[in-house]
Amino acid sequence: MRLVTRSEIEAVFDADAALAAVESGFRRFSAGEAQLTAVGQLSFADPPGDCHVKGAHLAGDDVFVIKVATSFYRNPDAGLPSSNGFMVVISARTGEVLALLRDEGLLTDQRTAMAGAIAARAIAKPGSSTLGIVGAGTQARLQAQLISRLLGMKSILFWGRNPERVAVLAAKQGGRSVDLVYLCDHADLIVTTTPATEPLLTAEMIRAGTRIVAVGADSPGKQELEAALLARARIVVDSRAQCVHHGDTGWAVRAGLVDEASLIELGALLAKPVEFDAEDIVIADLTGVGIQDAEIAKSIWSRLPPAVFQSEVFQSDWRGMS
Amino acid sequence: MRLVTRSEIEAVFDADAALAAVESGFRRFSAGEAQLTAVGQLSFADPPGDCHVKGAHLAGDDVFVIKVATSFYRNPDAGLPSSNGFMVVISARTGEVLALLRDEGLLTDQRTAMAGAIAARAIAKPGSSTLGIVGAGTQARLQAQLISRLLGMKSILFWGRNPERVAVLAAKQGGRSVDLVYLCDHADLIVTTTPATEPLLTAEMIRAGTRIVAVGADSPGKQELEAALLARARIVVDSRAQCVHHGDTGWAVRAGLVDEASLIELGALLAKPVEFDAEDIVIADLTGVGIQDAEIAKSIWSRLPPAVFQSEVFQSDWRGMS
Repeated sequence: MRLVTRSEIEAVFDADAALAAVESGFRRFSAGEAQLTAVGQLSFADPPGDCHVKGAHLAGDDVFVIKVATSFYRNPDAGLPSSNGFMVVISARTGEVLALLRDEGLLTDQRTAMAGAIAARAIAKPGSSTLGIVGAGTQARLQAQLISRLLGMKSILFWGRNPERVAVLAAKQGGRSVDLVYLCDHADLIVTTTPATEPLLTAEMIRAGTRIVAVGADSPGKQELEAALLARARIVVDSRAQCVHHGDTGWAVRAGLVDEASLIELGALLAKPVEFDAEDIVIADLTGVGIQDAEIAKSIWSRLPPAVFQSEVFQSDWRGMS
Repeated sequence: MRLVTRSEIEAVFDADAALAAVESGFRRFSAGEAQLTAVGQLSFADPPGDCHVKGAHLAGDDVFVIKVATSFYRNPDAGLPSSNGFMVVISARTGEVLALLRDEGLLTDQRTAMAGAIAARAIAKPGSSTLGIVGAGTQARLQAQLISRLLGMKSILFWGRNPERVAVLAAKQGGRSVDLVYLCDHADLIVTTTPATEPLLTAEMIRAGTRIVAVGADSPGKQELEAALLARARIVVDSRAQCVHHGDTGWAVRAGLVDEASLIELGALLAKPVEFDAEDIVIADLTGVGIQDAEIAKSIWSRLPPAVFQSEVFQSDWRGMS
């Protein structure tokens, strides 16, 4: 097993290659070419946090990937990052663990941001110029950076529950801190990135033609968008099975407001673009699919320089000395 | 993160303490004190193999455990062990990965054998003297050792599909290689440990009063016991939810031969022993529960000597030198 540190991961990380890999992964997933594990999940109340375990194998690949990622939202209060975890690359021929990517949440953060950007590119109206970001955490920052770069946004509006954090983020990203109503009235594309458990965006707040990428609701109990808003919208989901279970979409489907059959899977949309009407509200509901982890981990794994020594060599050397 | 090698794990492994921990885990699981992840699973056809991902947190614990284990049954043909994998101990307060136990399947093998021995002890008739082991792999060996030690068995009969492997195993364990009909006719307690996908033991082959521990069928599609045999038996399961889905029990429940409500969970049986009739066939169907992984990993974690240096220290030292 090769132990790959976060700095080694950062050294070989190629954002464009990873983005292309994740996009390809979505297409192959929706084409039925991926085997996924059931999503493993543990939730903690005090302090609040959760752990997600996802795994995927793409047909024909020599390796598969298992990811363990944790989020503890109060960690920053103690000076710790909220995200932690790793991905492992495992041989699909022998089951040997080939590499442990100690990304400490970095790759999960990146692949989540990439899914947001891929979905944004797929649903944004041509000429969109104002991006609205709801939330002030890691995803707020990454999505703002990636989407504004990818879609050439001219201005970014930020809103979040913590005005100080929003102000810092807006300043760093060259955007503006505004109130949520203003953001909804002016953004062409809104990205929601919060761990909210009650809707932040209601049907009433959203203008016709607005495009929304919702990445926060990735566990049962989380919700950023009012069900009535989804009822008015055309809905793109990263995984139909997952979104009806624990995305924003799930609330609307369970309330009988959205027909599961009307959901468009992102991979299918990428393979065969849909002409949305200019007045359509289009929502991309993203819950995170193991295929994203598999693709980003493989893109790191394939770029690693040859290992001079395996980490176990160090260990046994040291043990010999002690 | 502390990287703990297999030899470090072996150095601190205390079989009796681990057995007690796993037994306590079963009790607490059946008492509703455990949070488990959905079981993640990937299956591979060529070469045949699978990967299981399980995780658990016990109420009040500062840590939780995620386990990744692979089994590739043809690895031994290439001189490789069939089992691989690791367990991680993660803080339930911050989500930080505290330790990676690179057990390479050792702890999964041990906790599986321990569950078999715990179940055997709970269902065996007093005075049982002949143990029958079906299969010739790692579990056949470990269950033979642990159960004969724990229950003081006088003789062990072995049967498996590969006569040469069985002969080697029987010789090493001081037992006898016999045919399957003979084994069923003479064993007081039978342990089945194969990856069979069609029943090996039928209702017709099993005498009244026989006790059976079935540990092989841990994935959908696997089956060691004929459904009609379960229909005649009293059934103990490690996890009701899991066994009706993918244990031997599942086949019998789906066929309408066994009522789910009649299943006795192992942890409940341990907490409140049931008086089985001497003529009862009693079957313990074990599919492997995340709680076993959590308990055995914690028992290693709690016994580790203080780390002099974390493995990352080596890594960065070395990187500085390169």
